[in-house]
Amino acid sequence: MSVRELFPCAEWLRRYDRGILISDLIAAVIVTIMLIPQSLAYALLAGLPAEVGLYASILPLVAYAAFGTSRTLAVGPVAVVSLLTAAAAGKVAQQGSPEYMMAAIILALLSGLLLLAMGVLRLGMLANFLAHPVIAGFITASGIIIAVSQVRHILGVEAHGENLLDLSMALYGHLGQINLPTLAVGVPAVVFLFWVRGGLAPLLVRLGLGREVAAMAAKTGPVVLVIVTTLAAWLLGLGERGVALVGDVPVGLPALTVPDFSLELWGELVGSALLLSIIGFVESVSVGHTLAAKRRQRISPNQELIGLGAANVASSVSGGMPVTGGFSRSVVNFDAGAQTPAAGVFTAAGIALVALFLTPLLFYLPRATLAATIIVAVLSLVDLKILKRTWTYSLSDFAAVATTIGVTLLLGVELGVLCGVLASIGMHLYKTAKPHIAVVGQVPGTEHFRNVNRHEVITDPRILSLRVDESLYFANSNYLEDRVYKMLAERQELEHVILQCTAVNEIDFSALESLEAINTRLQEAGIRLHLSEVKGPVMDMLKRTDFLEHLSGEVYLSQYQAVKALSGEREER
Amino acid sequence: MSVRELFPCAEWLRRYDRGILISDLIAAVIVTIMLIPQSLAYALLAGLPAEVGLYASILPLVAYAAFGTSRTLAVGPVAVVSLLTAAAAGKVAQQGSPEYMMAAIILALLSGLLLLAMGVLRLGMLANFLAHPVIAGFITASGIIIAVSQVRHILGVEAHGENLLDLSMALYGHLGQINLPTLAVGVPAVVFLFWVRGGLAPLLVRLGLGREVAAMAAKTGPVVLVIVTTLAAWLLGLGERGVALVGDVPVGLPALTVPDFSLELWGELVGSALLLSIIGFVESVSVGHTLAAKRRQRISPNQELIGLGAANVASSVSGGMPVTGGFSRSVVNFDAGAQTPAAGVFTAAGIALVALFLTPLLFYLPRATLAATIIVAVLSLVDLKILKRTWTYSLSDFAAVATTIGVTLLLGVELGVLCGVLASIGMHLYKTAKPHIAVVGQVPGTEHFRNVNRHEVITDPRILSLRVDESLYFANSNYLEDRVYKMLAERQELEHVILQCTAVNEIDFSALESLEAINTRLQEAGIRLHLSEVKGPVMDMLKRTDFLEHLSGEVYLSQYQAVKALSGEREER
Repeated sequence: MSVRELFPCAEWLRRYDRGILISDLIAAVIVTIMLIPQSLAYALLAGLPAEVGLYASILPLVAYAAFGTSRTLAVGPVAVVSLLTAAAAGKVAQQGSPEYMMAAIILALLSGLLLLAMGVLRLGMLANFLAHPVIAGFITASGIIIAVSQVRHILGVEAHGENLLDLSMALYGHLGQINLPTLAVGVPAVVFLFWVRGGLAPLLVRLGLGREVAAMAAKTGPVVLVIVTTLAAWLLGLGERGVALVGDVPVGLPALTVPDFSLELWGELVGSALLLSIIGFVESVSVGHTLAAKRRQRISPNQELIGLGAANVASSVSGGMPVTGGFSRSVVNFDAGAQTPAAGVFTAAGIALVALFLTPLLFYLPRATLAATIIVAVLSLVDLKILKRTWTYSLSDFAAVATTIGVTLLLGVELGVLCGVLASIGMHLYKTAKPHIAVVGQVPGTEHFRNVNRHEVITDPRILSLRVDESLYFANSNYLEDRVYKMLAERQELEHVILQCTAVNEIDFSALESLEAINTRLQEAGIRLHLSEVKGPVMDMLKRTDFLEHLSGEVYLSQYQAVKALSGEREER
Repeated sequence: MSVRELFPCAEWLRRYDRGILISDLIAAVIVTIMLIPQSLAYALLAGLPAEVGLYASILPLVAYAAFGTSRTLAVGPVAVVSLLTAAAAGKVAQQGSPEYMMAAIILALLSGLLLLAMGVLRLGMLANFLAHPVIAGFITASGIIIAVSQVRHILGVEAHGENLLDLSMALYGHLGQINLPTLAVGVPAVVFLFWVRGGLAPLLVRLGLGREVAAMAAKTGPVVLVIVTTLAAWLLGLGERGVALVGDVPVGLPALTVPDFSLELWGELVGSALLLSIIGFVESVSVGHTLAAKRRQRISPNQELIGLGAANVASSVSGGMPVTGGFSRSVVNFDAGAQTPAAGVFTAAGIALVALFLTPLLFYLPRATLAATIIVAVLSLVDLKILKRTWTYSLSDFAAVATTIGVTLLLGVELGVLCGVLASIGMHLYKTAKPHIAVVGQVPGTEHFRNVNRHEVITDPRILSLRVDESLYFANSNYLEDRVYKMLAERQELEHVILQCTAVNEIDFSALESLEAINTRLQEAGIRLHLSEVKGPVMDMLKRTDFLEHLSGEVYLSQYQAVKALSGEREER
């Protein structure tokens, strides 16, 4: 790996000029303002003090700017990763305890180290095992759980739980204790944010603003809400009326922390850290890809592992929490005109200034405001239509979505994504274990062979042409044997069996043994076994064995040549 | 499921006559005699009292005779399953304690219930996920562990351990305490049995016996050894000289037992029971298949699950241990001329008679004799050549064998087989995640298209024909996108991309989204995307979506027709 590959920043730093600097600075100011409520909110979602969200938005941005390949990705706390952090830390400590904080820091560290290791080992492809339906289902179900978990802040009650059932029961049980002043802040906040999201930009356009300026102005909704509700809480003394406020946020930059090294604790958290890393990576890479494509840029998934790994390690040593590239903050950064990751560094400086000087202003910020921010943000991620779309396409994809959503909602986020992944892999293996085997014949007037049941084709009763629609490997080698033997029993005149290997991309050792068994069995019955259209890589492997010497028949370049040679006299066309 | 399917015995009972009866009776007498040392030995291997081996060779045989489909399979305790039983029971109780005995009984019950459930659900195919290399590696490694674990009985020392390292260290530590009289029994016993196995039959043939009679006579080696060493132990008073004897074996039939129902204990054992069931099932089915093929009979794997399940439940309620169809006992049964499972019922009666009347004769039987029997039996299963054979064939099959053998020897049997299965599935998925993608061209004079790098073919710079050698699914959909985009960048004149889908057996939802993305991206670059040779089942699914409407190009029946239509004027042949 060259220095230039390891530090993608070298590339854009060389061409950095005043024009880019100004673009980046403007973007950074906008993103800094937007990020404040989001960072505080996601820290609270993770069960951590609000300031941790700010800390996790300083050093990680600098680390990502040095090692990441996306020009516009904005790194920091995001909803789904915060939820996973809460689930993982909650297994080893009580929310609010120092041990809980340490668990979050260790999760960031482990996650960083795992991402770095995966990057060095070029394991970015592991993320591909999260099927799209599993990701879509997981994000939808997480969004629902997060939204429901925030309802308690809107109602001003205590109600905790890791899954939808627990949460709903807890909320129901506390319906009698609703704090009306909190409700009076929370409900209008939610309504306002939904309106801002949907209705404000068109309104501003109608009032004469440019489309882009209007869209950007609409994104300031959360900031406006923070200012208005903080002022209201201060002026109306809402704190004394039972409205939960953010309260004291320490002034100053985060102290450098040395994460505890406890082998036992690390062992308990490493599984969760891996899950959190992979999900964060997938989310980040998909955002990065989307934004890069818009400007004809490219990102490198394996280098992204390094960038996100460095960001998480940076987060852990500065008292932060697990971070990743977030959708909403990246879009803000992109739309605000950020040209290079330097915008991230400037944003980090902005957040650092906030942490140094402005945290006292956050004392009166109602938690209900932050909850409203979260609810509106995550509900935009909920996409139940994925159920319908997969249902019309295939049962197995639908099952993967349904499993992921169902288990996530009922049993929790970690089990949900695990079951989704296992279900999708399991169903894929199940399908390949019982492959489609077509009897094929020649399409008249061509050299092309197709399924006898779907096309009008020419066949010869002495020749059985089989197309196995799958690689031959251990999971289906016995199945293949059984099917071939059954077909033999139904055909008396048979002299030749030709396996058309167009779809056979691999023949593993188990399948080789099965082919040898089939060859022997056919030979005993006076039938010759032939292969056709064997691909190069498969043929290379077969040549390393003595199978081709034992084979009672031949290997033909094409199915047409095989049938032509074996049917002898007959000549088509 | 019809009554006839559920009771395969109905089939052979209808045709039962005196000739078959006599064959079955003779086979039963021979098998009974052979089974006694084997049953005692495998019970001791499982860490159980010797008589448990006899109990597990009575009712289970009757149950299998009623429900099993193999005519000659002999069910009872076998080496590998006994080893797994010891590993599993050893996790929850101390050898020799009543809890340990109960654990073995519960393992048999759970194993029986799991096999029955799998049979009812027709899950016999699950066994296909044990790749041949994994099975071969597991049996080899288990054979080594079993043989080494029995060396202590030959040396007359105490040395326990679950893996090769522990066992070797324990043996090494006790080398000073070797009991010479035990050694004097054990070593000649091993040598004798090896000689009987290899040299006796040819000698008898040379002495004028028929080949089959000689082979059968050679199989009585273990029985002769039992008689000789028992007499020697009695006459020479070897027991007082420190030679371990079998000792008191209770007289009488097993009492019917009701297995403990403890949810916690069942929970601890159910994983091991599942493993043990699947491995026992695979071993039994492969033996059954082999023997059935010799007489042109068939066995039904799903019904075998029912037969073996019933056998294990029967074993558990009669104080036995987990059982399955064993290789050596089945071969004896087959060679002795058994015609139907009635031979098993007669064998059960024979073993019952032994349990009722002959157990006092076993008092002086040296344990070293049984250990010698086990060592010689399992060493014949060790096949280290599998390492070399897979090595020359493919790295992934070799890795599966090596992982299975390595982990089994170093960390134990259960982890060994689990890691082997995970490694083989993981490597299969890894391969399909990075599929071979060939650029293809027309083989001159044919309608056949092959890899441009391997064959002399005709291509057109305006047309890129790609053959993806894998089903398109979530694990490789991103990879496909990346590869296609890279190929585009290298080709400037391109007007058409044709995906030849001969090897695409499935397009799942994730891959469909990737194809849509590729289609859009190509369209933006002014290139049309076409598909050719799409298989029936895949086409059926695509038709359920609007993908074909968005597709910028066409779907052609064959690659030849696609290229012919797109290259327009040009006409081959």
